[in-house]
Amino acid sequence: MRIGFVGLGNMGQAMAMNLVRAGHQIAAYNRTASRAESLASMGATVAASPAEAASAKEVVITMLADDAAVESLVFGPRGVIEGLPQHSLHISMSTISPSTSQRLAAEHKERVQEYVAAPVFGRPEAAAQAKLFIVAAGSQDAISTAKPVFEVLGQRTFVVDERPEQANYIKLFGNFMITCALESLGEVFAVARKADINPSTVFEVLSGTLFNAPVYHTYGPRILEENFSPAGFRMPLGLKDIRLGLQAAEHLNAPMPFANIVHDRFLTAIANGCEDLDWSAIALGPAEDAGLPRTRIGSGSKTAA
Amino acid sequence: MRIGFVGLGNMGQAMAMNLVRAGHQIAAYNRTASRAESLASMGATVAASPAEAASAKEVVITMLADDAAVESLVFGPRGVIEGLPQHSLHISMSTISPSTSQRLAAEHKERVQEYVAAPVFGRPEAAAQAKLFIVAAGSQDAISTAKPVFEVLGQRTFVVDERPEQANYIKLFGNFMITCALESLGEVFAVARKADINPSTVFEVLSGTLFNAPVYHTYGPRILEENFSPAGFRMPLGLKDIRLGLQAAEHLNAPMPFANIVHDRFLTAIANGCEDLDWSAIALGPAEDAGLPRTRIGSGSKTAA
Amino acid sequence: MRIGFVGLGNMGQAMAMNLVRAGHQIAAYNRTASRAESLASMGATVAASPAEAASAKEVVITMLADDAAVESLVFGPRGVIEGLPQHSLHISMSTISPSTSQRLAAEHKERVQEYVAAPVFGRPEAAAQAKLFIVAAGSQDAISTAKPVFEVLGQRTFVVDERPEQANYIKLFGNFMITCALESLGEVFAVARKADINPSTVFEVLSGTLFNAPVYHTYGPRILEENFSPAGFRMPLGLKDIRLGLQAAEHLNAPMPFANIVHDRFLTAIANGCEDLDWSAIALGPAEDAGLPRTRIGSGSKTAA
Amino acid sequence: MRIGFVGLGNMGQAMAMNLVRAGHQIAAYNRTASRAESLASMGATVAASPAEAASAKEVVITMLADDAAVESLVFGPRGVIEGLPQHSLHISMSTISPSTSQRLAAEHKERVQEYVAAPVFGRPEAAAQAKLFIVAAGSQDAISTAKPVFEVLGQRTFVVDERPEQANYIKLFGNFMITCALESLGEVFAVARKADINPSTVFEVLSGTLFNAPVYHTYGPRILEENFSPAGFRMPLGLKDIRLGLQAAEHLNAPMPFANIVHDRFLTAIANGCEDLDWSAIALGPAEDAGLPRTRIGSGSKTAA
Repeated sequence: MRIGFVGLGNMGQAMAMNLVRAGHQIAAYNRTASRAESLASMGATVAASPAEAASAKEVVITMLADDAAVESLVFGPRGVIEGLPQHSLHISMSTISPSTSQRLAAEHKERVQEYVAAPVFGRPEAAAQAKLFIVAAGSQDAISTAKPVFEVLGQRTFVVDERPEQANYIKLFGNFMITCALESLGEVFAVARKADINPSTVFEVLSGTLFNAPVYHTYGPRILEENFSPAGFRMPLGLKDIRLGLQAAEHLNAPMPFANIVHDRFLTAIANGCEDLDWSAIALGPAEDAGLPRTRIGSGSKTAA
Repeated sequence: MRIGFVGLGNMGQAMAMNLVRAGHQIAAYNRTASRAESLASMGATVAASPAEAASAKEVVITMLADDAAVESLVFGPRGVIEGLPQHSLHISMSTISPSTSQRLAAEHKERVQEYVAAPVFGRPEAAAQAKLFIVAAGSQDAISTAKPVFEVLGQRTFVVDERPEQANYIKLFGNFMITCALESLGEVFAVARKADINPSTVFEVLSGTLFNAPVYHTYGPRILEENFSPAGFRMPLGLKDIRLGLQAAEHLNAPMPFANIVHDRFLTAIANGCEDLDWSAIALGPAEDAGLPRTRIGSGSKTAA
Repeated sequence: MRIGFVGLGNMGQAMAMNLVRAGHQIAAYNRTASRAESLASMGATVAASPAEAASAKEVVITMLADDAAVESLVFGPRGVIEGLPQHSLHISMSTISPSTSQRLAAEHKERVQEYVAAPVFGRPEAAAQAKLFIVAAGSQDAISTAKPVFEVLGQRTFVVDERPEQANYIKLFGNFMITCALESLGEVFAVARKADINPSTVFEVLSGTLFNAPVYHTYGPRILEENFSPAGFRMPLGLKDIRLGLQAAEHLNAPMPFANIVHDRFLTAIANGCEDLDWSAIALGPAEDAGLPRTRIGSGSKTAA
Repeated sequence: MRIGFVGLGNMGQAMAMNLVRAGHQIAAYNRTASRAESLASMGATVAASPAEAASAKEVVITMLADDAAVESLVFGPRGVIEGLPQHSLHISMSTISPSTSQRLAAEHKERVQEYVAAPVFGRPEAAAQAKLFIVAAGSQDAISTAKPVFEVLGQRTFVVDERPEQANYIKLFGNFMITCALESLGEVFAVARKADINPSTVFEVLSGTLFNAPVYHTYGPRILEENFSPAGFRMPLGLKDIRLGLQAAEHLNAPMPFANIVHDRFLTAIANGCEDLDWSAIALGPAEDAGLPRTRIGSGSKTAA
């Protein structure tokens, strides 16, 4: 397939490479053009604008940092929406707000373009290994068109609804639940350390029993090792997703007290110099409240388990 | 082995039955004696007091509701500690505070008795199927004595430390983390319902990906079906465990903001007539805050998914 | 002075009347024109648009519900900014966000118009009695021009800074602190009732000693009597102000845990049918969590103290 | 009157001195006997035990750090209850739990002794100036006996109920509300500083309008000056009072979310080296979360406002 790919961050680059390897013709666009070089060396075309990336393609994929980037690169001058042919499909795979997704749906419809929201679960490593989980929503026809793309990029696709924004909600829910797992581990590890219990023993028991799930296996060891740099997903991105979730919940008059707490962990971390760490570093918040020293922050090197 | 068993609640009865079936000689004690009848019909002896249950036994197991029950039936008149022979072993398997566990360790030591703390993860169904997870701490010798008991009762035993109270801490951590899973699911389901998203779809995606762990599979469907009665673990017991965790954390000067929130969910539920429901009903708290109706509370019968 | 007055809600109408009574020439505008009738009968002119209200005036005052209303009636078609002469002054007296205030400052400057932010503390009764507290910020010249207006409307004016948005921040701080007083009284009254202590006695002691301040005297009796209807300040307006405060704080990476809690009280109240009550009804949140019955909600009549 | 006085901390010493100055015959007891020296130099007798202090007195006053001290010095060997004559009166003026107060009432009654709970509002300065607010509860006769004492020690006495523990509840409520004022000021000052607004200006506006009450005037300047040492009321005492309030509320199934937050501020402060500061230093918590530097902590000297 001829595919435009807009957004070559940690996630996007890995995903675009998999599409090239799978034999698709990729035209890639990134604001910082140098990020496209390795992709070009693999045979991808480099586009001069999002419109050019989308032009004459069957599918264009966006994998961008936030709603503002989508607004700018889709709706802005020389944006995706200008270049995409009628009946072609835009797959928005980044984590954006349900309301921006609704706007995308409406504007594409007006231009007789197709739209699928398909945010993903998985960190850059999972993207590189084509092990993403994809949550997709859109019309049946549009989903059918997107299927071959999903098969290349992910290990499993959940088709959840015809209304695209539902996929975006579910992605926000998932990210919120990840932060809840981080905070709960963080509180437990802090108390354990103060009670002179090895937090690794605690984690072994918990993750070997009721909490035997990828979210704990992925993040537990990172927290125990204070291994937050380089970041797979930076603090401000985590904050953004919790904010989008809270805004959606407020709009629906639904309080989310756990979300408030993790939201404030992000603010505290960013206000105290941890902006560039992986978002899982919020799990150190409880340790700091409890007066426990950080052992590895800022070192960047991985010294021990 | 000759084993005394003190405490025949939902959990204790199932466990004692498994020990009888495995060929052990059981002398059982329960405050409400009628709870011992089915056990007696299987061949167990009924003891007239905790002391009698412990008397002339190699091992006595306590499986009691809370610290107060332990204080009363272990240290009170005709209590376990009076009857247990020197060098015999007390295995405390209920969820009690680390400080009560420390007191048990000290008092048994003074009387040349052995002591192991071995709280369990698992609901009554798991107890009946001998699928409990056991977290054990105590001296190596005492743990060796306890091993055959653990093999009958559980699917896996984690030996965590020589200090008994460490097992009690870990049990409290685990129960706290379960309540965090409940609250996070509850918040997500409430927002989903208000956004006209099927919460079962949300759960399918989450539990099929990052949150593929027993804690979510056990409780997710219960919450979705509002299936909280009869209770496997009643509200006041959940409250007790969170309180014990918070008290231990306070003593160590470690704040636990998530624990505060779930603690208050229990108070709110109990204050509003839900005392007899399963503790997982705290997950309806976010729905009530959001003005969503309960559909099944109080029905008791299970009508649909 | 020739003064345009835009926004004749509970507050604005009372303020505009005081200006008429003080001898100023008032041209009033309100979206729902009927709200201007009693003012017209007192001698004010009724303007057909915000631009007309501002046209040929020395001062135009806006007293509007929220940022959106300001955007629309100031910057929209036939808006204030179109009609206001060069060198004339816009006094924005409603509670708006610091960022909207900054935009107002910038746009007025571009058009060689003056701008003062002057939000007020005080409920409609205080507005009627010219007992408002005014928090003003702007250039010294602009403040001088505004002085005679402030003298008519308020009992005291605090000039806080040359940067207009600082007054808006302080107003948001004040409203936040009011909600903290409401919540803290609410928690205390709920526990008192459950302990069989007369909450009126509690209030008498507290408000007669350390808490002898207008905020407690204004709201304590309302809460004790559950006298929330008709509303002096409706729930959605209270929610809006807390949201503006939280947004400003988030932008500055400053967590506000108390603000989160009162924010969620508003969501819970609105989600549960209390949208039209006075914002002080959030103080019943703790009582409801504690399972205490509401006694007067919805009655509207005042039956007892 | 012949009065025994047990407990010569910051508060007790100032109060006992006022009683001596008013002409009463005081027998004083303190665990650290040296604290009684200045009192002795004014003419008071030094008792060798609480029982001796109470012996042959019309009234004995206790002003002790916490429930444990009351238990030990009232009920312990050579305790108050042993020495106090029949029909004489025990006035418990420290902040203790309602349940300990109930126990005192019951035990005194059994010994035909009188009992009044009369906790006070006011810091050591207020105690020295006889400006305390006294909240008293007990039988009318007992209150009558206590009146002359109250007149010496305080500026105003509130007689709230015949059940002594009600006074203790109200004292806990008051201390909780003080901490709410501290936290709300702390949050506001932190956001103000980050928005480049002078927090003193904010305080001037708020305390000059709706928040014109002693609690704000007492604590606002302390927080602005970060003047927390020497402590009038140390962190662990503040924590104790919030804990007592939360325990009472839990027992009544009444959640107190604000109390949870201030409770955790105390834990965080104590865990991070601020144990010896005045309890009002919890108001720096929001500043620290927001990444703002402390300016004066540890300096001890008071430089300026």
